Amino acid sequence: MSRKILGFAALFALFAVPAQAQQASSGVSPFVMNSLFIVFCGVLVMWMTAGFAMLEAGYVREKNVVTQCAKNIGLFAIASTAFILSGYGFMFPNGSWILPGVLGFDGAIEITGVVDGRDQFVGRGHASAGDVFFQSMFCVAVASIVSGAVAERMRLMAFFIFTAILTAVIYPIQASWAWGGGFLATDLGFRDLAGSSVVHVTGGVAALTGALFVGSRGGRFVDGRKVALGNYSLPLATIGTLILWMGWYGFNAGSYLSFSTDADAANVARIFLNTNLAAAGGVIVAAFMSYLREFRFDLTFMLNGALGGLVSITAEPLFPSPFWAFAVGMGGGLILYWAIQLLDYFKVDDVVGAIPVHLFCGIWGTIAAGFTNPDASVLGQLSSVLIIIAYVGVTTSLVWIALKETIGLRVTAAKEAYGIDKSDFVLDN
Amino acid sequence: MSRKILGFAALFALFAVPAQAQQASSGVSPFVMNSLFIVFCGVLVMWMTAGFAMLEAGYVREKNVVTQCAKNIGLFAIASTAFILSGYGFMFPNGSWILPGVLGFDGAIEITGVVDGRDQFVGRGHASAGDVFFQSMFCVAVASIVSGAVAERMRLMAFFIFTAILTAVIYPIQASWAWGGGFLATDLGFRDLAGSSVVHVTGGVAALTGALFVGSRGGRFVDGRKVALGNYSLPLATIGTLILWMGWYGFNAGSYLSFSTDADAANVARIFLNTNLAAAGGVIVAAFMSYLREFRFDLTFMLNGALGGLVSITAEPLFPSPFWAFAVGMGGGLILYWAIQLLDYFKVDDVVGAIPVHLFCGIWGTIAAGFTNPDASVLGQLSSVLIIIAYVGVTTSLVWIALKETIGLRVTAAKEAYGIDKSDFVLDN
Amino acid sequence: MSRKILGFAALFALFAVPAQAQQASSGVSPFVMNSLFIVFCGVLVMWMTAGFAMLEAGYVREKNVVTQCAKNIGLFAIASTAFILSGYGFMFPNGSWILPGVLGFDGAIEITGVVDGRDQFVGRGHASAGDVFFQSMFCVAVASIVSGAVAERMRLMAFFIFTAILTAVIYPIQASWAWGGGFLATDLGFRDLAGSSVVHVTGGVAALTGALFVGSRGGRFVDGRKVALGNYSLPLATIGTLILWMGWYGFNAGSYLSFSTDADAANVARIFLNTNLAAAGGVIVAAFMSYLREFRFDLTFMLNGALGGLVSITAEPLFPSPFWAFAVGMGGGLILYWAIQLLDYFKVDDVVGAIPVHLFCGIWGTIAAGFTNPDASVLGQLSSVLIIIAYVGVTTSLVWIALKETIGLRVTAAKEAYGIDKSDFVLDN
Repeated sequence: MSRKILGFAALFALFAVPAQAQQASSGVSPFVMNSLFIVFCGVLVMWMTAGFAMLEAGYVREKNVVTQCAKNIGLFAIASTAFILSGYGFMFPNGSWILPGVLGFDGAIEITGVVDGRDQFVGRGHASAGDVFFQSMFCVAVASIVSGAVAERMRLMAFFIFTAILTAVIYPIQASWAWGGGFLATDLGFRDLAGSSVVHVTGGVAALTGALFVGSRGGRFVDGRKVALGNYSLPLATIGTLILWMGWYGFNAGSYLSFSTDADAANVARIFLNTNLAAAGGVIVAAFMSYLREFRFDLTFMLNGALGGLVSITAEPLFPSPFWAFAVGMGGGLILYWAIQLLDYFKVDDVVGAIPVHLFCGIWGTIAAGFTNPDASVLGQLSSVLIIIAYVGVTTSLVWIALKETIGLRVTAAKEAYGIDKSDFVLDN
Repeated sequence: MSRKILGFAALFALFAVPAQAQQASSGVSPFVMNSLFIVFCGVLVMWMTAGFAMLEAGYVREKNVVTQCAKNIGLFAIASTAFILSGYGFMFPNGSWILPGVLGFDGAIEITGVVDGRDQFVGRGHASAGDVFFQSMFCVAVASIVSGAVAERMRLMAFFIFTAILTAVIYPIQASWAWGGGFLATDLGFRDLAGSSVVHVTGGVAALTGALFVGSRGGRFVDGRKVALGNYSLPLATIGTLILWMGWYGFNAGSYLSFSTDADAANVARIFLNTNLAAAGGVIVAAFMSYLREFRFDLTFMLNGALGGLVSITAEPLFPSPFWAFAVGMGGGLILYWAIQLLDYFKVDDVVGAIPVHLFCGIWGTIAAGFTNPDASVLGQLSSVLIIIAYVGVTTSLVWIALKETIGLRVTAAKEAYGIDKSDFVLDN
Repeated sequence: MSRKILGFAALFALFAVPAQAQQASSGVSPFVMNSLFIVFCGVLVMWMTAGFAMLEAGYVREKNVVTQCAKNIGLFAIASTAFILSGYGFMFPNGSWILPGVLGFDGAIEITGVVDGRDQFVGRGHASAGDVFFQSMFCVAVASIVSGAVAERMRLMAFFIFTAILTAVIYPIQASWAWGGGFLATDLGFRDLAGSSVVHVTGGVAALTGALFVGSRGGRFVDGRKVALGNYSLPLATIGTLILWMGWYGFNAGSYLSFSTDADAANVARIFLNTNLAAAGGVIVAAFMSYLREFRFDLTFMLNGALGGLVSITAEPLFPSPFWAFAVGMGGGLILYWAIQLLDYFKVDDVVGAIPVHLFCGIWGTIAAGFTNPDASVLGQLSSVLIIIAYVGVTTSLVWIALKETIGLRVTAAKEAYGIDKSDFVLDN
């Protein structure tokens, strides 16, 4: 379609009724298979939202747990909406570049999924509405990553506004560089199948800038040392992690976008297996290291080990053999360990460990893909992830600063001390 | 098959071993695709049972949480069994009408799914056992809706007997009017794709009559004002809501019953997207309204906003464009707000908000389908939902009265005050 | 492939990059359908891990809940890894028998799933990596069964070592007898579609020997009578059970391994329906019996009733008609009741009821398959399950004894009394 922006004509088309997509001649078409595959993978990715919610509810203190749940339900609604309004158009410019390879917008009309009597994505292999659904769940994941790091002290209103901007503009423009035909893919040969960088590094950088601008929780660092502030419920954090683990199969496998040929089936099945083994590798390293250091198995480190392994394999879950996938996951567990030390050294307060898991393991996974994916180069991977870090670092910082200077990022010290849940009945929320 | 009722011959056939269904000549048939689609959607709908269980466990007080869990596990077992015994035969008379278009029964034999060597539903496009499985999960949902509204004071035994009658007789007869070829569909042009009325209004009316007959909890209304009695765990209510959100994709999409042509794929994918956006719309309205009123974001209202949006889009999740789907969901959020005021005004004690969500948003969704579905009329929708309300209102009231006059609906005041869980070791359960 | 063991050449091949599987000529092949089916069923079986984790976290006391979660995350990682390293090769010798029909090993290379340019399992009907993924999730389930029975007093390190041996060697060798072409299937006509014996009796026997060797918790049996020690959270046990119920659809249906012909679709849909009805039957019997005895509905007995019904139908979920499936599940509920009495009589301390559910209902389900599956005989089923019990009983006992005599099976009495979670910061873990 020709370049266009969201105008009244496009808006009108948004309200059109669905027409019948073109019928397959007989039997079941690849289009049908791919579409079934992608909507069920989308459901698994949606489910990760519940995983983030339970993980974060489990890790915060009891006095802030209701607020944290509200944050996660709210961001889900905001991110899915913002992505539909403009995110998808930025992410897949479909040739409508303003700055070629860097910034494009195809208008919201593509989002409706039903245009002039047939599904315009038949040629691309799966239902357009399924594509929008699947991609919007990815967008929700990015916002979910941020949510945990800034927990227990950021104002909900500030977080919700940030989420809207992140998911409507910042994330999708960046995603277009790798997945929408932009310059990272075309000029640097960047390969990131399911988003170690596109999703996790992006979310991780936004979490880092958020944690820096909002500051650490009161009492987190005393005399230069980190203080464990306690958790509401580690069983909730456990089921949250297992939900994420389950959803990740859909996250990684669905990114293959196709399940209609024998080769698709063999390859996607391999993604399921590799994804699982990377998580297992992360857990085993974390368990081993916590035992070496403390002669006990540390649950929270093992849970984050699973997530670190999963983030690490996300850039390239197909090419590694199962044993390399396991090794990549083990690498994630190690990176995690050092990243936690690093954040503590710089006194960054990340309530759930989102920055070590998503930013640091995301970088590792992106680079590892340079070794395992024959189409990628380590240099191309490294320079791409650095560009993403710089872009997301700058843009999210600008948003955090704007929010800080206007409505404010942080609840009052009195509210923070008392707990946001109960004190949240006054004007300054 | 010719008309028949459940007799000994039919019972004998129930125990037959499965014969091989007719083989497709080559490749994968639409029958296979549709069957795969429907069983996986059935799993998602089953999962909603866990959503209701956690939502209700989260909202009741700690002293009644074990009883509430027992209620949800028990109703699942009872409803799946009752639906197999007679519900399915009432719901799909398959031409065996006693009162044409109003009451029919096809016998339990159809339920076995395997008759004389091939699956008799090949002609209808999907495996018969898959159809029974999927529909029985819908039936469980109806009973689950009631369970929350009457929590913390109704006797388990009374609720279980009510559930058996609701799911064996009341719900399926009503469902036959819209989905089994009955008079609402044929004479009034009623369209309710996934059951805003057939499932949610029905469950909501049963919840309302139940709440009225059992009365409100002690201490709920003091000096004419509603008192917040507290909740066991809002994180559990949050995961319960997210489970329902996840399961709803299968609820709405599975109701399309077919996923084998390109048009199916495009349309069903659209149902996934629309279902999600309606939920998002409900959350955003609820968040906005709670902020307007109290300068804070109210978690429970946001959670019910999601459910209200989902119920609203259920009657017609296909025809609206994504933006209309979002608007229908926003409408659900608004309706919810007023419905809660209305119930408080009439001093109806609904522990989890089941009546606003399922009855009021269900009515709204049914009417909205009159605007969005070109095959439906607002008048036909409105008169159909009124007929369903009247029928379910009268029949459930009769059952509640019969139970009240015999075994009694309510636990003793002493048990209610002490908490049902711990006091439940005496004869009067 | 010719017989081989895991050597350096094989290890090298493990790190190969995937080649493209042979392309289907046109349309969607049965291989694609079967592969899609098996990976999604694998996700459901993986989800059972979360079910076991929540069930066990719910049933243990608060002072040990963190340790229990660590145990479940750890066993997941260990079992998936061990199964890949050697388990799969033992389980499917693929002709490479050392003792024909009893012990074989096909080498780890088969596990990579991608060999010389095409998927070597195209002939077997589904993607090899999907098969490994699905089977590895079964292996995790076996270890999960043990985890609950020995909770609150076994050292994590001992349990993890046991898990590695169980899943790398003991379980897969046994599984080869029924599913890998071994002597139970060929010589005794043993039929166990989804593993009432292969998985559940095996796990149940390992749980029994574990509970015997580690001994009962302090204070469990006082003056010869069992003392209820309390639970952390029955709502968590409830969602754990519902997760298992959900996952079981994939466990039983996925074991059919095929979903590409009309007959497959009809039969697998029937498995979904039967699995659900068996669970319902178990719940209803448990509810009825607890009401008869105590005039109340006992939640934990109802939850275990669901699981008992599910285990019972697992050996043969296809052949029974829905009503027989319900009856088999009811039988499971009854068996459960007596098994609990029996264990109490012998003073076996099983924290979550794993032995009654998995061992006793597993035996019942295996025998029941002798009646419902026309290809099986009661005698063949009975002798097969006795052989499995003897083998697993002896081998697991040897491992428990070796662990007891070396690193020790049990935490110190002081740690047990104080709670493992908080006291677990000292050397003796």
